[in-house]
Amino acid sequence: MPLTDDMLLREYKGLSPAEFFYRNKEIAGFSNPTRAVYQTIRELVENALDATELYRILPDIKILVNLRNNNGAEFVEITVEDNGIGIPRHEVPNVFGRVFYGSKYKLRQSRGVFGLGVKMAVLYAQITTGKPIYVRSSTPYSCSIYEYEILIDITANRPIVLNHRIYKKRRRWHGTVVKLTIQGNWSSAKRRVEEYIKRTAMITPYANIYFKAPDLEISFKRVTRKLPSLPIESKPHPHGVDLEMLKAMISPLEENLTLREFLITRFDSIGETTADNFCKWAGFSPSIKVKKLDLKDLTLLMSKMKEYNRWRRPRGRALSPLGTELLKKGIEETLHPEFTTAVTRKPSSYSGNPFIVEVALAWGGKIPTSDKPILYRFANKIPLLYDEGADVSRKIVDSIDWSYYKVKFPAPLAIVIHICSTKLPFKGVGKEAIADVVEIEREIENAIKEAARRLRAHLVRIEKIYELKKKKITFEKYIPEVSRALSEICRVKEEYIREKLLTIMNRILEKRGSKEVMIYAQDPGAKR
Amino acid sequence: MPLTDDMLLREYKGLSPAEFFYRNKEIAGFSNPTRAVYQTIRELVENALDATELYRILPDIKILVNLRNNNGAEFVEITVEDNGIGIPRHEVPNVFGRVFYGSKYKLRQSRGVFGLGVKMAVLYAQITTGKPIYVRSSTPYSCSIYEYEILIDITANRPIVLNHRIYKKRRRWHGTVVKLTIQGNWSSAKRRVEEYIKRTAMITPYANIYFKAPDLEISFKRVTRKLPSLPIESKPHPHGVDLEMLKAMISPLEENLTLREFLITRFDSIGETTADNFCKWAGFSPSIKVKKLDLKDLTLLMSKMKEYNRWRRPRGRALSPLGTELLKKGIEETLHPEFTTAVTRKPSSYSGNPFIVEVALAWGGKIPTSDKPILYRFANKIPLLYDEGADVSRKIVDSIDWSYYKVKFPAPLAIVIHICSTKLPFKGVGKEAIADVVEIEREIENAIKEAARRLRAHLVRIEKIYELKKKKITFEKYIPEVSRALSEICRVKEEYIREKLLTIMNRILEKRGSKEVMIYAQDPGAKR
Repeated sequence: MPLTDDMLLREYKGLSPAEFFYRNKEIAGFSNPTRAVYQTIRELVENALDATELYRILPDIKILVNLRNNNGAEFVEITVEDNGIGIPRHEVPNVFGRVFYGSKYKLRQSRGVFGLGVKMAVLYAQITTGKPIYVRSSTPYSCSIYEYEILIDITANRPIVLNHRIYKKRRRWHGTVVKLTIQGNWSSAKRRVEEYIKRTAMITPYANIYFKAPDLEISFKRVTRKLPSLPIESKPHPHGVDLEMLKAMISPLEENLTLREFLITRFDSIGETTADNFCKWAGFSPSIKVKKLDLKDLTLLMSKMKEYNRWRRPRGRALSPLGTELLKKGIEETLHPEFTTAVTRKPSSYSGNPFIVEVALAWGGKIPTSDKPILYRFANKIPLLYDEGADVSRKIVDSIDWSYYKVKFPAPLAIVIHICSTKLPFKGVGKEAIADVVEIEREIENAIKEAARRLRAHLVRIEKIYELKKKKITFEKYIPEVSRALSEICRVKEEYIREKLLTIMNRILEKRGSKEVMIYAQDPGAKR
Repeated sequence: MPLTDDMLLREYKGLSPAEFFYRNKEIAGFSNPTRAVYQTIRELVENALDATELYRILPDIKILVNLRNNNGAEFVEITVEDNGIGIPRHEVPNVFGRVFYGSKYKLRQSRGVFGLGVKMAVLYAQITTGKPIYVRSSTPYSCSIYEYEILIDITANRPIVLNHRIYKKRRRWHGTVVKLTIQGNWSSAKRRVEEYIKRTAMITPYANIYFKAPDLEISFKRVTRKLPSLPIESKPHPHGVDLEMLKAMISPLEENLTLREFLITRFDSIGETTADNFCKWAGFSPSIKVKKLDLKDLTLLMSKMKEYNRWRRPRGRALSPLGTELLKKGIEETLHPEFTTAVTRKPSSYSGNPFIVEVALAWGGKIPTSDKPILYRFANKIPLLYDEGADVSRKIVDSIDWSYYKVKFPAPLAIVIHICSTKLPFKGVGKEAIADVVEIEREIENAIKEAARRLRAHLVRIEKIYELKKKKITFEKYIPEVSRALSEICRVKEEYIREKLLTIMNRILEKRGSKEVMIYAQDPGAKR
């Protein structure tokens, strides 16, 4: 078969990140007009929450959806307003107009991580309605409020600023308002969006969230002013190191720094003893100068650091779990169960990334009865609604033998699983499912079992109370007859015996019963 | 809660695409040392096949795996050699050292599409062993062979060329040899890799594929010299248009081009009548100059183009399905079934992207008996091995009522589903699962049903043959007795009657039977 010139004609070219994701929108969750509405709201709300909570500001978030008919096409206008830290003026164009640009590329927990979400929404607006994103923002110490209208130059991955205005700030205000208009399908997205807002409220009970669309209004008032602990940026853990990282860490160092000093000062969880033990085990001299290590040495060092199994676990300071108290508050406020118990596990790690698993079980009350546990998944305080079947949490929940915990399905059981980490193993940039990492699986399982034991205790207790009630009814039925018989035998007045018997019965049953009810009113876990 | 300066300290920064994927390796399938081996081999093999088949070259692919112990760490050295078109010398550094760079960003079917795969493998080598990728290549008309050793400057997303040599070409050779060394786990990746190679051979029966590792050697010789049809780059279909695309298409045009001319010359499947009908329906004058359209007009034009439901389907010229003949050849050579039937559907489309579904059913022979159909998934001739549960094909196969087609599980049934498109709706850049797009679901279902009806006919036929055999045995049992009785009644020699009866029986049964067997030997579908 001869090769012709025509066949050899190949055009090589590079794509900017913006062009790449413009061509592959579905990878980031923008696969159709329904999903695009959901994904846009999500990205904006998550940025709003990060802009408040990460700076110790109690979040006030307002989400408005307006519909406009544009010659038969449905234009969905989405506005999200927060009272957050604002965006420095000169950063606004890049933050909204450049893919892979952001302030969250750090070793600490935050909702946003990819530097992609809001730009995808801007791109989607641009290609469906041609309308730019509108941004108004101000930081706490700025004397002005600034407005921008931005599009993305897709080929260059650069912001195009269409309009820019600055006003003098006349009242104290800081925060960000963002408005986007996309072509979308609101009526089919509505249910998911509503669910998303509810679940967001569940995991952020310290936030005011107000949502309004033409046919839907939801409002969640904060039920506590307590914010979760602030995540602090941390150093890398030795177990998660790679060659490029080592090179990048070493290159700015001074000539004389020894390996021992390097280990102690640049990594998380390495003290003097650990550093010495590791060097001995790995066959490195602690006093060798790190700048003297060549590629071969570095490769060996990296391998050994990965292999060493006596590092301390990474510390959880970079993480911001909700904590059992907030978790329970959020659930009680949204699900209205009869019984709730929550577990926050200690920090654990996979490939050097610290993570914490939190689990809450909610039972009865307004929880609907279902054939299997209703699962609420959260990752770094983001509710996950799609791809439940591919998620590690569903896998573990389904593997539990619930009958052991006295749960017989159909039952009114809801499970909330929150995983937080400086690096979540999402299966895709759409952030919908977490991969089945063995270490995470183990923590989820242990957390569920711990909570399930408490649920079991609760179910045993209400079973007892029910039995006591049944006993009382039985006694009350027989007391008249027994009284009559005793009255004849003892020749004592029937009424007198009946009253006495009733008093004795009530005393005994109430004593037992009130004990049960007292315990029942508390979360048994709280006593630990 | 006061805001401190410290809280306001935010560092904004941009990441290069290389840095983004370096930080999020798992998104591209490089999630652990096992998967990394599989993914690396895959990316290299797929490039090798694209480099041959897309240029009408019968592929000769050689894959070598070597293991080296490096101070306890397992270094896996992977070499892939092809006889393809080669890479032009000045393009080699970017092709291997720059994320989002390639020759396949075109409207035609190819295995590679993201411009990401091989660079992820280079990055993975770089961060686990520090070793550069080695490349040797030459194009058919070049007089030299060139070698490169390349690393990636992650921060800049630029190739770093460590070594570069050029030799005079002394014999006719063109193709590419690539060698990478990564830290990996060969023993646990082996089974997947073996499966991957086998399935690749199944879908490319026109390729020679040779694989050798220390503990595994597989070789597939081509069983045909017939290549599938060549995909031809096509124009965009009007249904898949977006605003950015319209703007980019219009900007280089001459001032006087009318909308009608624009539609006819720049889009797939629009002729004069279609253009006129569309303009009338959408309320646009056909003679309007496209350069005069403002943003509002363009938005309306785009909406109408998306909405119009009387476009012709996109043509399948950009696609390269295997065809029933090659599909069956590949299956027979690898699965050795008793019966095979294959269906190639006509081109269809979703959101303006043409696609074709091909399905083959293989029954009996060496196919193991299983509780549900064994599924072989392919997308643009790539075997998909992971995430079967999330794939559209599994969903459809499981929804079929197989008993209707005379299949009772456990049964020896394998299903091959091949989807090809200029744009496959992969769920992630790791290319493992196809999203459930309604149009694709419908085509898969129709293709399976068409093939299943033929399988049913086959099963009915072998059931009949079996019954004939049973009848024969029964007759043979009774013939002696009948002969004896007849002999007594008619006073004819018993042997004579027995022989006559046997002859009659054989004549009748053989006549019927041979008819069945004859049909049985053919694929009934082939007669259509």
